[in-house]
This record gives sequence, C-alpha cells and structure tokens, in this order.
Amino acid sequence: MDHGILFDHSRTARIGLPETVFCEGKPFAALVELLSRFGNGSGHPILFTRLAPEVFAQAPEAIRTGYDYHPLSRTAFGDTLPPKATGRVAVVSAGTADSFVAWEAARTLAYLGIEYKIFEDCGVAGLWRLAERLEEINTFDALIVVAGLDAALTSVMGGLTPKPIFGVPTSVGYGVAHGGKAALASMLSSCAPGVAIMNIDNGYGAACAAARVVNGL
Amino acid sequence: MDHGILFDHSRTARIGLPETVFCEGKPFAALVELLSRFGNGSGHPILFTRLAPEVFAQAPEAIRTGYDYHPLSRTAFGDTLPPKATGRVAVVSAGTADSFVAWEAARTLAYLGIEYKIFEDCGVAGLWRLAERLEEINTFDALIVVAGLDAALTSVMGGLTPKPIFGVPTSVGYGVAHGGKAALASMLSSCAPGVAIMNIDNGYGAACAAARVVNGL
Amino acid sequence: MDHGILFDHSRTARIGLPETVFCEGKPFAALVELLSRFGNGSGHPILFTRLAPEVFAQAPEAIRTGYDYHPLSRTAFGDTLPPKATGRVAVVSAGTADSFVAWEAARTLAYLGIEYKIFEDCGVAGLWRLAERLEEINTFDALIVVAGLDAALTSVMGGLTPKPIFGVPTSVGYGVAHGGKAALASMLSSCAPGVAIMNIDNGYGAACAAARVVNGL
Amino acid sequence: MDHGILFDHSRTARIGLPETVFCEGKPFAALVELLSRFGNGSGHPILFTRLAPEVFAQAPEAIRTGYDYHPLSRTAFGDTLPPKATGRVAVVSAGTADSFVAWEAARTLAYLGIEYKIFEDCGVAGLWRLAERLEEINTFDALIVVAGLDAALTSVMGGLTPKPIFGVPTSVGYGVAHGGKAALASMLSSCAPGVAIMNIDNGYGAACAAARVVNGL
Amino acid sequence: MDHGILFDHSRTARIGLPETVFCEGKPFAALVELLSRFGNGSGHPILFTRLAPEVFAQAPEAIRTGYDYHPLSRTAFGDTLPPKATGRVAVVSAGTADSFVAWEAARTLAYLGIEYKIFEDCGVAGLWRLAERLEEINTFDALIVVAGLDAALTSVMGGLTPKPIFGVPTSVGYGVAHGGKAALASMLSSCAPGVAIMNIDNGYGAACAAARVVNGL
Amino acid sequence: MDHGILFDHSRTARIGLPETVFCEGKPFAALVELLSRFGNGSGHPILFTRLAPEVFAQAPEAIRTGYDYHPLSRTAFGDTLPPKATGRVAVVSAGTADSFVAWEAARTLAYLGIEYKIFEDCGVAGLWRLAERLEEINTFDALIVVAGLDAALTSVMGGLTPKPIFGVPTSVGYGVAHGGKAALASMLSSCAPGVAIMNIDNGYGAACAAARVVNGL
Amino acid sequence: MDHGILFDHSRTARIGLPETVFCEGKPFAALVELLSRFGNGSGHPILFTRLAPEVFAQAPEAIRTGYDYHPLSRTAFGDTLPPKATGRVAVVSAGTADSFVAWEAARTLAYLGIEYKIFEDCGVAGLWRLAERLEEINTFDALIVVAGLDAALTSVMGGLTPKPIFGVPTSVGYGVAHGGKAALASMLSSCAPGVAIMNIDNGYGAACAAARVVNGL
Amino acid sequence: MDHGILFDHSRTARIGLPETVFCEGKPFAALVELLSRFGNGSGHPILFTRLAPEVFAQAPEAIRTGYDYHPLSRTAFGDTLPPKATGRVAVVSAGTADSFVAWEAARTLAYLGIEYKIFEDCGVAGLWRLAERLEEINTFDALIVVAGLDAALTSVMGGLTPKPIFGVPTSVGYGVAHGGKAALASMLSSCAPGVAIMNIDNGYGAACAAARVVNGL
Repeated sequence: MDHGILFDHSRTARIGLPETVFCEGKPFAALVELLSRFGNGSGHPILFTRLAPEVFAQAPEAIRTGYDYHPLSRTAFGDTLPPKATGRVAVVSAGTADSFVAWEAARTLAYLGIEYKIFEDCGVAGLWRLAERLEEINTFDALIVVAGLDAALTSVMGGLTPKPIFGVPTSVGYGVAHGGKAALASMLSSCAPGVAIMNIDNGYGAACAAARVVNGL
Repeated sequence: MDHGILFDHSRTARIGLPETVFCEGKPFAALVELLSRFGNGSGHPILFTRLAPEVFAQAPEAIRTGYDYHPLSRTAFGDTLPPKATGRVAVVSAGTADSFVAWEAARTLAYLGIEYKIFEDCGVAGLWRLAERLEEINTFDALIVVAGLDAALTSVMGGLTPKPIFGVPTSVGYGVAHGGKAALASMLSSCAPGVAIMNIDNGYGAACAAARVVNGL
Repeated sequence: MDHGILFDHSRTARIGLPETVFCEGKPFAALVELLSRFGNGSGHPILFTRLAPEVFAQAPEAIRTGYDYHPLSRTAFGDTLPPKATGRVAVVSAGTADSFVAWEAARTLAYLGIEYKIFEDCGVAGLWRLAERLEEINTFDALIVVAGLDAALTSVMGGLTPKPIFGVPTSVGYGVAHGGKAALASMLSSCAPGVAIMNIDNGYGAACAAARVVNGL
Repeated sequence: MDHGILFDHSRTARIGLPETVFCEGKPFAALVELLSRFGNGSGHPILFTRLAPEVFAQAPEAIRTGYDYHPLSRTAFGDTLPPKATGRVAVVSAGTADSFVAWEAARTLAYLGIEYKIFEDCGVAGLWRLAERLEEINTFDALIVVAGLDAALTSVMGGLTPKPIFGVPTSVGYGVAHGGKAALASMLSSCAPGVAIMNIDNGYGAACAAARVVNGL
Repeated sequence: MDHGILFDHSRTARIGLPETVFCEGKPFAALVELLSRFGNGSGHPILFTRLAPEVFAQAPEAIRTGYDYHPLSRTAFGDTLPPKATGRVAVVSAGTADSFVAWEAARTLAYLGIEYKIFEDCGVAGLWRLAERLEEINTFDALIVVAGLDAALTSVMGGLTPKPIFGVPTSVGYGVAHGGKAALASMLSSCAPGVAIMNIDNGYGAACAAARVVNGL
Repeated sequence: MDHGILFDHSRTARIGLPETVFCEGKPFAALVELLSRFGNGSGHPILFTRLAPEVFAQAPEAIRTGYDYHPLSRTAFGDTLPPKATGRVAVVSAGTADSFVAWEAARTLAYLGIEYKIFEDCGVAGLWRLAERLEEINTFDALIVVAGLDAALTSVMGGLTPKPIFGVPTSVGYGVAHGGKAALASMLSSCAPGVAIMNIDNGYGAACAAARVVNGL
Repeated sequence: MDHGILFDHSRTARIGLPETVFCEGKPFAALVELLSRFGNGSGHPILFTRLAPEVFAQAPEAIRTGYDYHPLSRTAFGDTLPPKATGRVAVVSAGTADSFVAWEAARTLAYLGIEYKIFEDCGVAGLWRLAERLEEINTFDALIVVAGLDAALTSVMGGLTPKPIFGVPTSVGYGVAHGGKAALASMLSSCAPGVAIMNIDNGYGAACAAARVVNGL
Repeated sequence: MDHGILFDHSRTARIGLPETVFCEGKPFAALVELLSRFGNGSGHPILFTRLAPEVFAQAPEAIRTGYDYHPLSRTAFGDTLPPKATGRVAVVSAGTADSFVAWEAARTLAYLGIEYKIFEDCGVAGLWRLAERLEEINTFDALIVVAGLDAALTSVMGGLTPKPIFGVPTSVGYGVAHGGKAALASMLSSCAPGVAIMNIDNGYGAACAAARVVNGL
C-alpha cells in the first residue's frame, strides 16, 4: 500500500497493475516531489490515493495543473493506462454516505483504462431501487459492492447475480457500526456463496481485484 | 435469567410475565426439585428453558410425565397461561440451522398462551422464499426475526413491514460469524428503522418482548 | 440510515415510517439542497438527524427559517406527520449526560405525531428518583430507556413494568464504558425478561420501534 | 495465584494472608503431594482453590479425610486460621447460578477465620428481595457482591450502603454475557461511587480483599 | 450457508452455483433425509460440506454408497456438474496443517466440474518452495491461496502474479493466531493490490468465487 | 457518575459520600449554573470532577473565586467535608505520566476531609524507589495504586503490604497499552491476593472506595 | 510453524535453525511416518513440538524407542545438534503452572545443543524468590522469562539485568487472563526497556530467538 | 517508559541502558525543565523520545541549541554514550510510511553509540528490493524489522537470516490495519522461528533490545 522512493517499476510487467502512491501519512515534501515527477505527459501513469483536498491544494499550481484530481475520492492521476477493449465493471453502493469509497473504486478503474458505471442508493431497506436496475447490472463482467452498517446489500446481490463480486465494507456509521467492523463481519459471513471481501474503505483494492478479472478476459 | 429458590412469585402481577427457570449451569438436584413442584396440574405454570435433553431424560419418569418437553428448543412446561383472545406473533427464521432459537421463541409464546406461526427458510440468498410469504406475515401483530451469519433478513424485513420487529441473532456459523457476534453487530446496525434486538440465541427474550406488545393490545 | 438522492418515497406506505436524512458524513452542499426541498409547508415532512449546530448555522437563513431545529438532539424538521389520536410513549433516562439521546428519541416522536413525556435523572444510584415517578411512567404505552455506563436502569425498569421497553445504550463514559460498549453489553444481558435493545446512541431508532408499537394500537 | 513447590511461607507475616494452592492446571501428582503435607493437624493451614470434585475424589482416602472439602466452591482446607474477634463480611449474590463464586468467597472467609453470612437471590429484577434484607446487610463491615449478566445489583447496592463493596462478576450467561465480560464491564462502569472490582469468578480474591479491610479494624 | 428443507432449486439458473448443504449443526435425521435424496444418479448434484467423518459413517450403507466422500475436506457429493471446457484454478497452500481447507476448495471445484491443481507447502519461511513452482501456478486462470498464522504467502503471491487471487485464512495456530483472526487481519491488510478475502476456513466460498470468474471466461 | 439537576441530596446520609458533578460532556451553561450554587460558603460541599481548565477559565470570575481549582486533576470544590479524626490514605503512582489520576484521587480525599500522602515515581523498573518508601507507605490505612502500561506495581505492592489496595489503571501509553486496557487486564489478573480494581483513570472512584474503608474505622 | 512433507532441509544452512514438526492438528498417520524417519541415529536431528502424550503413546513401540520424549513439554527428538562450546541460556518462570512452556523452551535448547538452566517459582508476589537467584541468572548470555496472569516478572527482570530478554506470556489463568491475552498485553507494554516478546505459550520460539543470540557469540 | 523527576540514575550500571524521557503526555513545563538539565555538555546523556516538533519548537532557543533534534523520529539528545567498538545493527523497513518508527530505532542506536544502517522500502510486494540487499544485511549483528499492514516482511526475513531479529509493527494503515493490531498479530504469529516482537511503533524498545545483544558481544 505504501510506495516510497524506491519505486517498484517492474510491477506492471509482473502483475498487470502499476505502483500506486498511498498519500496518507506521507510528509508533504515527499508528496510534492512525487507529484512533480508523474504528472500529465510524464509518460509514467501513477495513481495517488488518499490525497486529501487540503493537502493537494497546497501543492504548487504548476504541479496541480498536470493532474486530474477528484476531491470526494481523494484521488489524482496525470496520464491513465490505455483503454481496455473488453471488460466492464459495475460499482454498486448502498447509500450516498458510501460514495467516497465507491468513487475511489471508480477512479481507480478510470485510471486503469477500464470501463465502469456507478449505481448508487441501492440499499436493501428499499429493495425496489435495486430491483429495477438489476438487469443492467448483470450485463457487467465484475461487480464491486460498497456498503456500510449491516452491509446486507452484499448478500442480496450475491443471491441475484452470477458475476464475480468484490464487497467493500465502509466505515460509515456509529455505535457498533463505527469504523466498519460490523459491515466487514457481515460481508465475510455472507449467506450468499462466492462473495470475496476487501479491507474496510478499500475501494482502490476492489478495483484492482476487478482488474485482475477483466485483465484475464 | 436465573430464577432460584427464592421465587419472584409477584412478577406476573408486576410485569405480566411469570418467573422462568433458566436451567443451564444449575445443579441436577436443584432442577429435579424445581421440576417436581411445577408440573402439569400444579396450578403454577412455570417455563423451563435451556433444559438439555440428556438432563431431562435423567429426571424420574413420574416427574417427566407432568411436562410437555420439546428437545430442539430445550423447553418444558406443565400448565400454560390461559390463551389470549387477541394478538398473534410470527416467528420468521433464515435457515434450518436457526430452528433451535426460533422454536425457543415459539414454545415461550405457546406457554404464554399467545397464538403464533413459524416461517422457516426465509434467508435473503433466495429472496423469493420471503416474497411469497410476506403478505401473510404482515397479518401478525408482532414479528420475531431469527437469523445468524450476516443476519441480512432483519434489514430486508424492516423495509417491508410496519409491524414491531424483534431481531434475534443466532450463534450459527464459523470464523467471524462464530458465536453470533457478526449477526448481532449486523442487526444492531440495521439500515431499516425501528428494529429492536435481543441477546444472541435469546428466543425466550424475544417472545417476552413480543408478549409485552401483545399484552397491550 | 443513510437516505440519499434517490428517495424512498414509498416507505411510509410500506412501513408507516417516512424516509429520514442522516446528516453525519454527508457533504454540506448535499445537505443544503435537501434542506431546501423539505422545509415547513413543503408538504413532505422529512426528519433530519445528526445535524450538528455548526453545520445548520451555515445554511442560508431563508432555508433555516423553514425548520424547527433543536441543537441538543441535533434534529430538524419542517412539517410533522399528523398527530396520532392514541398511543403515548415515555422516554426515561438515567442522567443529564444522556439527554442528547433522550431528546433525539423525543424529537423523533414529535415529528411522527406521537405524544411523549421525558423523565430524566432516574439513575439507580438513587432509586427513590425512579420510585416516585414509576406509577406515572406505567400509564404510557411504550417505554424508551436511555442509559450509559452500567445501564442498570434498564434491568430495574424491566422488573417493574409490563410495557414494551426499548433500551438505548449511550456512549457516555470513559475507560471500559467509553463509546457505550459496556452499556450495550449490559442491556443485552439484562436479567429482566423481554427488554429489546437499539444500537448505541440510537434514539431515533428507539422512537421508530416505539412508533411501530403505537401504530398497531 | 499459582503456588508451587517453592512456598512463600513468609507471606502471612508480610501481608496477613497465607499462600494458597490454585489447583486448576496443576498435575495430579503434584496436587496429591501438596494435599499430603497440609491436612488437618499439620499445623500449616493452607487453602486449596479450584480443586474439582472429580480430582479430589481420586486422591487417597487417607489424605482426603484430613480435609474439609466443599464441592460447589471446589475448595478444601485442613486447619483454618484462628477466628478473628472482630469484623464480619456479607456475601450478596444475584442468583443461584452465581452460587459457586459466592461460596468460594464464603469458604475463603471461613478458612481465614472471618465470620460471614451469605444472602442469595438478591437480583434486581425483583427488587423486594434485596429491600427486605438490606438493613441486616448493612450491619456487616465489608460486602462482597457476586453477579453475572448485567451485574446491575452492584450499582443498586452501591447506592444503598456506606460499607466497602467488592464486586465479583461471574461467567454465568450466554451471548454477549458469555464468560463474564459484560458483567465485568458493567461493574467497572458502575454509576455508584467507590465500588471496587475483582477478576471474573474470583471469589477467593474478593474474600482476601475483604480480609484486608477486616484485618485493619 | 444454511440450506434447509425449502430448497432454492432456482439458484443455479440465477447465479450459476447450485444449493449446498452445510451440515454442521444440522440434526442427524435431517442430514440422512437429505443424503437419501441427492445421491449418485439422482439427477440433482448437491454438495455437502462440513460433513464430519463420524457423522457420515453413521448413515445407512445404502445411502453412503451413493456418495463420493472425502474425510479430510469433510465433503460429499453424488453427481457432479458437467465438466467445464475452459478455465483452470490453482489452490496454493502454506503448510500441511492448512490442507483441510485447501481440499474443501479443491473438492468444491471438482463438484462444480472445474479443473484444478493443489500446490501445498509453499509457506514463505522457505521461499524456494514457492519460487520453483511459480511459473506453473501462473498458467492458471484464478488462484486460491490458503494460509494460517501470519498468512504472509498471500502478499508474496499478490506481488508475483497478475491472476485473480482469493485468500482464505485458516484457523490453524495458537495464541494470537488461534481461530484465524490474525491470518484474516493480515490478509485484509495485504500490501499487495487486488487480493480478495473469504471468511476463515471458507474453502467452499473461495471455490465459488473462483467459479464466478471461470464461469465468465 | 452523572449527577444532574435532580440532585440526590440524601446520598451522604445513605452511603457517606455526597453527590458529585462529573463535568465531561455536560453543556457549559449547565456547569456554570451548578458552579454558581455550590461555591465556598454555600454550605453544600460538592466536588466537580473532569472539569477541564479551558472550561473552568470561561466561567465568570465571581464564580471561580468561590472554588479551589486544581488543573492537573481537573477538580474543583468550594467547601470540603469536615476533617476526619482517624484514617489515612496513601496514593502510590508508577510514573509522572500517571499524576493526573493520582491527583484526582488525592483531591477527592482532600474534599472528603481524609488525610493523604502521594508517593510518585515508584515504578518497578527501578525497584529501589519503592523499597526505600515501603515502610512509610505501610503506616497508612488504605492504599491507592495508580499505574499504566503493564501495571506491574500493583502486584509488587500486593505482595508487600497487608493493607487494603485499590488499583487504578491509567490510559497512559501507546500500541497495546493505548487507552489503559492492558493495565486494566494486568491489574485484574494480579498474582497478588486481594487487590481490588477501579475503572481506567478512575482516581475519584478509588478515593471513594478508600473512604468507605476509612469511614468504617 | 507447520512443517509438512516438502521439508525445508536447507533451513539450517540459511538460518542456523533446522526444520521442526509442529504436531498439533496433523493427522496421526502423517506423524507416525515423520517419526519413523527422524529417530535416534537417523542422522537427521528433528524436533517434534506439541506432541501430546496420548498421541505419542499410540505410535509403535519400535518407533518410540528412537526418541527422547518429555510429556510435560510435549516434545520429542532422536538426535540433537552438536553441543555448542559457548553461550548459556537461563529460563526463568513465574509459577509451576507455567512449567509446560518453560520446559518447551528448555527442551528446544537441549535439542539445539545449547546449555541452559531453569529457575522456577520466581513470581513477583514473593520478590525474595527472585532476589536470591538474581546474581546467578545474570551469569547467563540470554534470558527467557515465562509468565502468565499479569506477567509482572518480565518488567521486574527487565529492570535488573543487562542481558537480552525474551518474554513468553502463558495461557494460564481465568477471566480476563484466560488464554494469555492479559499477559501478552502486559509484556508488550513493559515499563522496562528492550524486552522482546513471543506469541502466547511459544517456548519453542523463545528458545530459537535465544539461539540466534547465542549463535552469534 | 515514563521517567519522571525521581530519576533512576543507577539504571545504566544495572542494565547498560540509561533512563529515557518519554515526552508524550508530560506537561510542557516539566519537559522544559528536563531539557534544561541534560543538554550537550551536561555530562548526562539522556534521550528524549516522542518529543513532537511543535513542542520542541516552543522551548527557549538557549535550550534547543544544546540538542540534536530529529523531527521525523521525534527524538532529541545532547551528548551520546561513547561509541561501541563492536556490534552493528541493521534497521530494515517495509515502506516509507514506516520511516518514523525506523528512525526512532536508528536515533536510539546513535544515542547509545551503536553503529547502524537503515534499509528502507523492502516490502515483500516487490521481493527483488529485499533480495538485492540481503547479503549486506546479513553482515550485521542484530536486525530490527519495521513493518505495518500485514507485516509479511518479518516472516520472509526470518526465513533468510540467522541473526537475532526484533520485529516492530507500525500503526500505519486503515480498516483492520488501523493502529497496528493486524501487524502485531501477524508478527507474533510469524511462521519463521525465533522472531521476537516489540509493542506497536516501539522503535526505541527495539533499539534497546538490539543493544542488549550487541552489549554482550
């Protein structure tokens, strides 16, 4: 997750996924230096995740203009990988509070050159919202399901689709739901077969998992 | 939960629910003495919960014949309370592995003189199983929802019915679901409004909670 | 709990409880837009919960004037549902530090058109405070019990009243009580029969649970 | 807690409490050897705790006859310390399922030569049971309160007596109460001031703590 | 995970994976009845998981002869699904103690008609064991990685292969590793991108997740 | 712990300890009102705990002058209870980082009119610091031991003194010690007999527990 | 920890420590086969750990005679490594209940050809037991400290010796000490500098850590 | 860890490691006083750890000039101990986010007069980074391995080097990795033999543990 000065440039060749800079906890100076090296046109497409708006805003404007920055998902990239001809991914989320994770997944897919579509507000407390979009969702090749609280959406989806599903619990909620532990436990215990799970809030990882599937098509 | 030698006989007058004997952990001799006092025709309807089949089987036959014993739910009672004229309770469970809890709830209702019906195998991995029984379920005055693993059934139910719902997480499952902690956290975090929760495997408590509702009708 | 742009307007018809906007974690712009749509006279009574005073204060005054805002409970609504003719709910709390939760429950009841009364400072360290109000409390149709720390009030109440009880553990306290886990465990383990529990600090949910009971009278 | 071959015989002189043999987990041969050294008339009063009935039964009869053995509390001793002239301790427990801990405390007091009385079935679900014995309880010099589940008895007692209180949570219960963690957290969070707590099921330790008080009178 | 009397026979049509009987906790009589219905030649290929050897051995011989039973993985099936023409899955495990989980995955794949190969003893304490098999492993279409303790194998694999990876933590180990929580946390925190995780010991689920990938090729 | 508007003025008569105002989480206006009622000369000695310096500083000066305020312990009181003629308490702490808790205990004792002395820097990493003060410590009637991290001081003290000991774990430390859970578990597991424990950072409670002992002398 | 069929025979050359067979959870047949290969005189000194007495007793006598088996530590080996000329290790334990772990460490040292001595019953509840042996303990080159419950011995030792210390928490105890989590947390939080910790009950690992030190002398 | 006013000046003589000032949580005034006593040329080399840059910056300049301050590691010292003639320590870390811990270890070694070298960015997601530096790392006498997330580096290192290894889990990460609990559990469960572990983020302790080894050479 951390990708420092000694870059692993051979990663793309080995696993089909380039190095990424996880920005949280990195000193500002180090981030600026990294941003200065991988902007638009640098020929080295690098994704920056967990790059807070207030941090990005402090970078010199000359550097910022080389990036496509997205505040909700806290992601930035200059160039993207070339668009893939085949393989599409759906990102399905339970509520608008889960959007920051859904968009981290979506932005990672965009950066990887993979076509995607987001379906928000599909929480099971109003099943009709999922029902009327299910047919379209099932046309995608891999699904990312983002949900907090009881994460019941993952199990419902798992019983309604044959596609690979990657569940991402979110840290949304309070009390026993605080920090996402309830959602994580719920997803791992899903009564639907073959649902695979990522760490809490790890939209980036879910996109990479989906990319591994799409890359093999 | 523990109800010893110094019986709280005024409980029914105070709260509408008589004393109960929680048998787990009580010495055999104490249980036999208690069973000998409250059998059929004793005039003191008392419920015994968590009374294991192998324990009950060791009681003298003369004592056992005074009881209606149900092995799956591990419950026994001699007399029941008089049947109530109004108020019916539905017990909805996710899978057959949850039956021991669903039946503890059902047997407690029977003992309290409350009409009930059990709806099993309603887990959300196959939503049609719930869908085709929903209309009937909604004719009851209070609902007990029993589920383990991700307990997603509770949230789905909460979004489909206006009736009081008492969720009971079960200890069914392994890994993070072991002991019912995942189901409990999921139920408490339910995205559906107004779902109230009992301790893990506490079918008895859910029946008492439903009785408090029915008693007020 | 999260209720985004794709509103579930049919919820009231299905379950008797309208959609609610849980504000914590929602972007300010989204909140302002939602507030602008559901103010007094809009014909769409919507409850906003966890709406922090410093957030509400930043909304344009023209929008704020359309709302009945209550800082302690962090709730706002424009219109309320029509008053119900029958069914009253008592909100009983252990200490003044629990007031923010007790008032979230009370305000939700007000919004739902349900008559209520709050009984504060009933903690069991001074039992006489509860004793002298018990008779009045028992005239209500459903009880919400709000307590932190050891939450002993729930068990004491459970042994003194036949009414439906919904316990809400609060996050008040430090050390092992921090965040409300001790209170939650204590309530779920209550030695009194038929006490049903909500997530920590979930006064809103308790009011909805009580509403499900009152709606059935 | 563990008291091996290298006995700490000077302990009584230092702290007023002699060495004790905690039997759980000790090899049978070691226990038999220890039992053979400290029986009735040996002049070395030693307490054996957590000595299971099935283990004690296997010791040679010649050894067993030198001991006063009590199966429920799993304690044994030959001689006791000389009776103390002043200082009496009350052991108050919530339910009969807590008896094994209450009796471990009581037996330790007996062994230490301290006068005691046990008050069982004082659980708060039926407050009258405690109320009618409170006056007598308050005549003792130190109180041991034994309770499982929500352990609400500790807080109620703490608000009704000026005497030193040592709370002992018990491992009685299931679900979130399993193993006594809920009772421990509840006692540590007690809303009553000055209640001090022991490890789960540690009746022996509570008796030692009470002895430290009584020894100073 | 639980699959009771009300079978979800339409599941294969919906999601490409048939119903399964999770045997742990089901009464013996129910298991025998289910086994009697789905044996070899019944035309209904059903997988039984967590079917303990001592339980299966008690079933009537006439029923047992209709099944391919595998004790280490505790799985049984009569017929299998038709063999798939494309898509192969590698099951890689860290040590022989993890075999029971690796084989549950392998047997599920066999039942689903998917070609697989097991690579055991690839733990990272001796990296050469993995190194000399890596090229072959990379010829498969999806990888299942089974590991307990620190589960470091998952991260090492994630950095060496572009294929979809489904990690299964096992309950192997003691102390902080007991029950698999350490392995689960380690896998979810993997420093390699795009590794998706199943519940502890859930080899069955990993096989279903891999099948979702292979079914889409 | 919370003591609101409905004061429990009869508490002193019942348990020998007056009501206390726990300030954390109380609204500023409520605190000011309470402070205005119980200052020096009011005739109602009330202790304020967890009253942060920045909060107290905002109270009107006319109110502040009526109080003896101590910033490190965050305590304030106007009048104290009359000095007790007998009974002295020692407060022993492991390191200077534990001082805020040691002083909360000391200030509570001062308020209760009980003589005390603080012994700081007695941590066991340098045993000589405790050794040379042990004889004096043993002249006190009750001991409060305050320690964080491994809390080893409690066990060492328990083996060296016959006096009642009340251990207070502190929230000092990081990693597994963060928040005081390690110190709490260590104290509850003490290998020395008869050591009784308070909630994390609860110096106030330890002083009340010691007062219960001293009040009985 | 697991060492299967694909032996890592080059381990000794790489790290100075040979492969070991962790027996817990391995099938009996596999253990017998392994035992048959590495007995006395086989030329391949291999250590078997966690080999239960009842399991070893079932192996054929011809195989058992090739082994030095030690029931308390549950270890077996045929040949040992050649004795080392320099470097001695002390194993210090708190109580006799910790012996099974202390002896696992000692036996591993014996197998590795390293001189050692065990010092038992050094628990801090009676400090004189450690004090009178400290001078001798300090003549060793590395120390293994084995303790359960509060594990206070580790911190006391850490403040009294300059030698490398490897702490091993044991699973001895009940309540919060159950399973060794309290001892582990206490050791990791030690107030003495430079104390390094192993997993709960991992005497084998501590011996290997000490061997790494001794091997470098 | 806390080292107050009553300095343990004899510590160096006893254990070869001088007292240290752990600054977190200490009042500013106390820190300034301590800094004023132990600056460059004071003749008392003292290490200050966890001294935040914003705190140090507020100390008077006259005091600051007497110190070598290092912001990333938050350490300061005036004089150092005399350089040791023998014994070198390698500090190996997984990613740049772990640098603050790696540097706390390195700075402590510098202060203790021990030669060291840092090897950063050795995470196992790109094994070649470790492989090409392994030979040099193996020339050191003791190794400190610093890693967060899954901490897989510890196990890989443990299988590749015969040297003493001290693992330090870091608090880097989110979700289940938050606070370092996952890394700690992973390290303690390491499948490589003889790896000893420190508390989360405890670089200082790892340096002391390595110093205990080097001091004995």
